[in-house]
Amino acid sequence: MTPQKTTTSQRRGRPGYDREALLEVCVAEFIKHGYHATSIGILAEALGVSKSAIYHHVDSKEQLLEMAVERALGALEGTITEAEAQAGTSLDRVEWLLEHSVHLLVTERPYVTLLLRLRGNTEVELAAMARRRAATKRIEALVRTAQQDGLIRPDLGAKATTRLMLGMVNSIVDWYQLDGTADVDELVHNVRTIAMDGFRARP
Amino acid sequence: MTPQKTTTSQRRGRPGYDREALLEVCVAEFIKHGYHATSIGILAEALGVSKSAIYHHVDSKEQLLEMAVERALGALEGTITEAEAQAGTSLDRVEWLLEHSVHLLVTERPYVTLLLRLRGNTEVELAAMARRRAATKRIEALVRTAQQDGLIRPDLGAKATTRLMLGMVNSIVDWYQLDGTADVDELVHNVRTIAMDGFRARP
Repeated sequence: MTPQKTTTSQRRGRPGYDREALLEVCVAEFIKHGYHATSIGILAEALGVSKSAIYHHVDSKEQLLEMAVERALGALEGTITEAEAQAGTSLDRVEWLLEHSVHLLVTERPYVTLLLRLRGNTEVELAAMARRRAATKRIEALVRTAQQDGLIRPDLGAKATTRLMLGMVNSIVDWYQLDGTADVDELVHNVRTIAMDGFRARP
Repeated sequence: MTPQKTTTSQRRGRPGYDREALLEVCVAEFIKHGYHATSIGILAEALGVSKSAIYHHVDSKEQLLEMAVERALGALEGTITEAEAQAGTSLDRVEWLLEHSVHLLVTERPYVTLLLRLRGNTEVELAAMARRRAATKRIEALVRTAQQDGLIRPDLGAKATTRLMLGMVNSIVDWYQLDGTADVDELVHNVRTIAMDGFRARP
């Protein structure tokens, strides 16, 4: 399928979707209603097309979910691979990953939001959650190495540090846009400073 | 209604629930299926009682949600009020709140989990989300005061700092039990250290 350019006016109500534009609208509906509560009928209404027009692009609702989580997980895995390949110290690699995770989250926000909210028992959901856990393990390995190198406090648990760091980053999907913080670099600065050095002022 | 003592065997399948035990089982089902997807039929099956037995205790599914979020929000608001009344510096109050938030989350975990996952549009959900936002604002005021007192880094946003700190704490509902971290004091230590001083080792 050749991607077609769509304009905003085409996206609203006109059957001129390429696959990516279609996915964007569907993911917004999944987030709004929850994946399981979102019927093909709801998607068709949001898209302003018939149900059969959706099946022209995808085989099932589940395929849309698969495409959405592939986008989030593909980006995350790519970022981890890049982080692992960075020069500098092992802590530099953790810091690089932290900064780029914030960027990834802001750029791919709806797809990451959907991924973070998956709790279901379908094959696609279970596969996505397993892949997410594997990504977390790779991040934990970076943290553990930095700790072994003496660059992360020895009294912290590597597992807990990884989960808390990611918890801080992932929370951004819940509050970032709402508060209208415009500057992503400022957001990155806040996350990096708190994670690396804490919020306590130093004399 | 006088609360009755129930034993574990009574909780499994026998209609000997007091209101609190009933709520506990229902909240677990809400978390498992999502609140909206959980019917009174599902609740009756999990409780091992008839639907009418549930209506002996509560008027509606929504009342169960109300009781659950009251428990989480009541505990949170109480903790904030205690934090505001603590002696010491304004940063001590933030630190006190941080530590006690972790304890609250571990103790009231199912109720907090349910609260954090609410996204709906019913009156009860909207009221709970508004109350949660008000609590966040009170925490932000504590952070802002500590920053004005020169005890929190001046280059951080008070809003972002508050949200990131809470994001770190709230993430615990998603990973704590799964990893089987047994020691809550250790968890508190990890959270407090990272939030206040960061994970970077100091020479």
